Amino acid sequence: MAHIDLNSDLGESLGAWRMGDDEAMLGIVTSANVACGFHAGDAAGILRTLRAAAERGVSVGAHVAYPDLAGFGRRNMDVASADLRADVIYQIGALQGLARVAGTQVRYVKPHGALYNTIAHDERQAADVIEAIRAIDPGLALVALAGSPLVGWAQAAGLRVVAEAFADRAYTPQGTLVSRRQSGAVLHDAPQVAARMLRLVQHGVVEAIDGTLTPIQADSICVHGDSPGAVDMARQVRQTLLEAGVELKAFA
Amino acid sequence: MAHIDLNSDLGESLGAWRMGDDEAMLGIVTSANVACGFHAGDAAGILRTLRAAAERGVSVGAHVAYPDLAGFGRRNMDVASADLRADVIYQIGALQGLARVAGTQVRYVKPHGALYNTIAHDERQAADVIEAIRAIDPGLALVALAGSPLVGWAQAAGLRVVAEAFADRAYTPQGTLVSRRQSGAVLHDAPQVAARMLRLVQHGVVEAIDGTLTPIQADSICVHGDSPGAVDMARQVRQTLLEAGVELKAFA
Amino acid sequence: MAHIDLNSDLGESLGAWRMGDDEAMLGIVTSANVACGFHAGDAAGILRTLRAAAERGVSVGAHVAYPDLAGFGRRNMDVASADLRADVIYQIGALQGLARVAGTQVRYVKPHGALYNTIAHDERQAADVIEAIRAIDPGLALVALAGSPLVGWAQAAGLRVVAEAFADRAYTPQGTLVSRRQSGAVLHDAPQVAARMLRLVQHGVVEAIDGTLTPIQADSICVHGDSPGAVDMARQVRQTLLEAGVELKAFA
Amino acid sequence: MAHIDLNSDLGESLGAWRMGDDEAMLGIVTSANVACGFHAGDAAGILRTLRAAAERGVSVGAHVAYPDLAGFGRRNMDVASADLRADVIYQIGALQGLARVAGTQVRYVKPHGALYNTIAHDERQAADVIEAIRAIDPGLALVALAGSPLVGWAQAAGLRVVAEAFADRAYTPQGTLVSRRQSGAVLHDAPQVAARMLRLVQHGVVEAIDGTLTPIQADSICVHGDSPGAVDMARQVRQTLLEAGVELKAFA
Repeated sequence: MAHIDLNSDLGESLGAWRMGDDEAMLGIVTSANVACGFHAGDAAGILRTLRAAAERGVSVGAHVAYPDLAGFGRRNMDVASADLRADVIYQIGALQGLARVAGTQVRYVKPHGALYNTIAHDERQAADVIEAIRAIDPGLALVALAGSPLVGWAQAAGLRVVAEAFADRAYTPQGTLVSRRQSGAVLHDAPQVAARMLRLVQHGVVEAIDGTLTPIQADSICVHGDSPGAVDMARQVRQTLLEAGVELKAFA
Repeated sequence: MAHIDLNSDLGESLGAWRMGDDEAMLGIVTSANVACGFHAGDAAGILRTLRAAAERGVSVGAHVAYPDLAGFGRRNMDVASADLRADVIYQIGALQGLARVAGTQVRYVKPHGALYNTIAHDERQAADVIEAIRAIDPGLALVALAGSPLVGWAQAAGLRVVAEAFADRAYTPQGTLVSRRQSGAVLHDAPQVAARMLRLVQHGVVEAIDGTLTPIQADSICVHGDSPGAVDMARQVRQTLLEAGVELKAFA
Repeated sequence: MAHIDLNSDLGESLGAWRMGDDEAMLGIVTSANVACGFHAGDAAGILRTLRAAAERGVSVGAHVAYPDLAGFGRRNMDVASADLRADVIYQIGALQGLARVAGTQVRYVKPHGALYNTIAHDERQAADVIEAIRAIDPGLALVALAGSPLVGWAQAAGLRVVAEAFADRAYTPQGTLVSRRQSGAVLHDAPQVAARMLRLVQHGVVEAIDGTLTPIQADSICVHGDSPGAVDMARQVRQTLLEAGVELKAFA
Repeated sequence: MAHIDLNSDLGESLGAWRMGDDEAMLGIVTSANVACGFHAGDAAGILRTLRAAAERGVSVGAHVAYPDLAGFGRRNMDVASADLRADVIYQIGALQGLARVAGTQVRYVKPHGALYNTIAHDERQAADVIEAIRAIDPGLALVALAGSPLVGWAQAAGLRVVAEAFADRAYTPQGTLVSRRQSGAVLHDAPQVAARMLRLVQHGVVEAIDGTLTPIQADSICVHGDSPGAVDMARQVRQTLLEAGVELKAFA
């Protein structure tokens, strides 16, 4: 039977500011990328999300980021290697501590935002993140953009890599993401998105923006929960996959 | 043979800003209270201090604090219980992660600055810190002000408590610290300070500010390293104790 | 004809995090207390709010706070006088700069959250805030809790003081706010709230929590906009006052 | 008589952390680039530096930066235009407010660190900074790297530009700075540095790293004060210029 993981970014509220609907998303996904305080998340809110994930049996990953609350970790930062490595270790450690208290544990690392995009292609920063993960716990998996150079770099370093596809993003014929600056980069039609992801799981292909079929090797699908519409779309992806007999289970 | 622990606050630099002389102090103390990023310390600098502590065989503790870089953790903050507990867990977890990478481990917790002073007497915040420590690792010791109510509260909760005295502070006849607002609260004469600490270790008493002898039960002595004069004083305390045959060893 | 000012806290979003509905509230109030970056607000978002206030002709005040994003400025902090004074000046100056670019100007200061509550009664911190305002611009008014000691302290120092009442809060027979820890402290019935405020404007009294009538001298009424229900309540206060022939106009 | 301005970065302490010797440098320079809180500086410390500058008659500029305390503003950040413009206005406004209280005023803007280097060549971010300055006060001068494209961009936008040379940096034959990654990029010999700057003022040339003479048009010379050696070098530059009859005066 075909199976896949569904992951989403959670724990991104900050003090008085709410972000997303963690409770709803924990009923949809199998893996929760939990903020670690650098781009989002305060410790008490992170702990609440971890406890809810533990109750639901949802797998937990560290959603590490650049230190940039004002920019929500979406701005490239030229962080030196010693700082980047230590910042990643610090964030994973903090989440491990909170996870232990919540009765769960950190099983993987998924970099966030600008760090995610940068290390998909930048070998220096990729090496720093890989080294940080290996130093604190080589058993942690790394969630990486399917088809990116990072997948190979991390595997070569001995890390388990989980390649992920994005449910609501258009792909180029080469299997890379269409830049958000291009029109059509983000998909808004929930049934279409769900059908695309079912095809991906069953046949290993997505229809690229030019209509050609592109092979994508993905172990996980990223869905979003930062608006009511996003939650509905994520729910539809889940339902469509389940109804087609696809098993949803965490990779870790 | 009499023995005692010497502890000091380390890892308190922040990015381009230097604080103290960690290298020098790691040659003097047996326990290093390492900043966790809330009042001081960036991850890369903390990691350097942890590595140096590991090389020297100096025991490591988490120097947890209120989230207040601008105030260096020295300002009272009315932090709610859910936040305080989670903030303490987050900081301990982050330091545990960095310590693992540095080849050492976190053995105790010493709250910093305003948090230290507050929980010495404030039962609500004390209970929050105690609960946080027990939740992440009940094997961690808590360093607390000798003679303060916190000692009893933490012991009643099952924590190992290490009572500490301050080398450069004057004491009241009741065995509490003379407030920094009073003249004579801080001692500056290194030989006098060293002699006081030797008497404390050998006889369990200090001369209070009114000349009476006051019993103090202490397992550790706190020395400072934030100025060249402070480092010299710490070195003299160490020398005086060693020359009198006192063994210096970490409590943990 | 009776007249009154309506004020609300705006500009409190932060980067990716939204807070309240500034556009809606700017159609309701006559004075906007705009966040200055210490408890909430990023510079670009503050500038947007200032531009919208300028377009609507809504008066602008500096909503200064303790430096505490994680706690949204709601936690008491024991800030030393030199720091508190300079922090207040810094925030007012920053908002003045943004206001100039937005084509408006800062006309008053309303401290936020814990700072607001503290200086209502704490003479030392009150003196610091008063001195800061006088130092940067003695023409700025200070919005203060009606009936609090702060009103007299600020007037004695030569500041123009605007006393404010809270639309959705219960009052004691002594004219002070019922503590939020008591049940019944916050009112939720919009028509009742609107009727209370009309009575306050027309007769200078509110019905206290014990049913007695209490005189309150207020030049402004604070309404909230941090939830759809709060916006509706604010709108109803406005409508009820307008329909009764009360003129709504900024005090400054 | 030849004349020149000497500028230096001041106000860069942060709470308990010291940086540089502002008092000493205010006896040497004619223009003080004062930190605005984004890369360094707390409000109370900035105010102290401004008061000392006012007493000494030293001209004050806003040393605006990316929001990055941990990186001291030295890391490139891909800040969007709306954010960069508003962040620059916010910082200038904050410093203007503090300067008014200190009895002085902000006369120019000098971007710091990574922002300085980026806008020397990046037209988009340069346009954002230029627009921000023009929006808050078109009378503010901009201090820019001599010979960089920024000089022309800012002049074309109507800003007064002050080109600056760096006393302790080596130059290429093309008149650009030798990258810090190259050996010989930073000069350490104080008499040599002072002689170079005298030649620059008198003859408009510096000896490039390959020994050729390169013309540099500079209205100001940047000296550093972040170490005792740096202060001594700055003092020697001042003395050498004065003894040769060069007048030291602020450009603004």
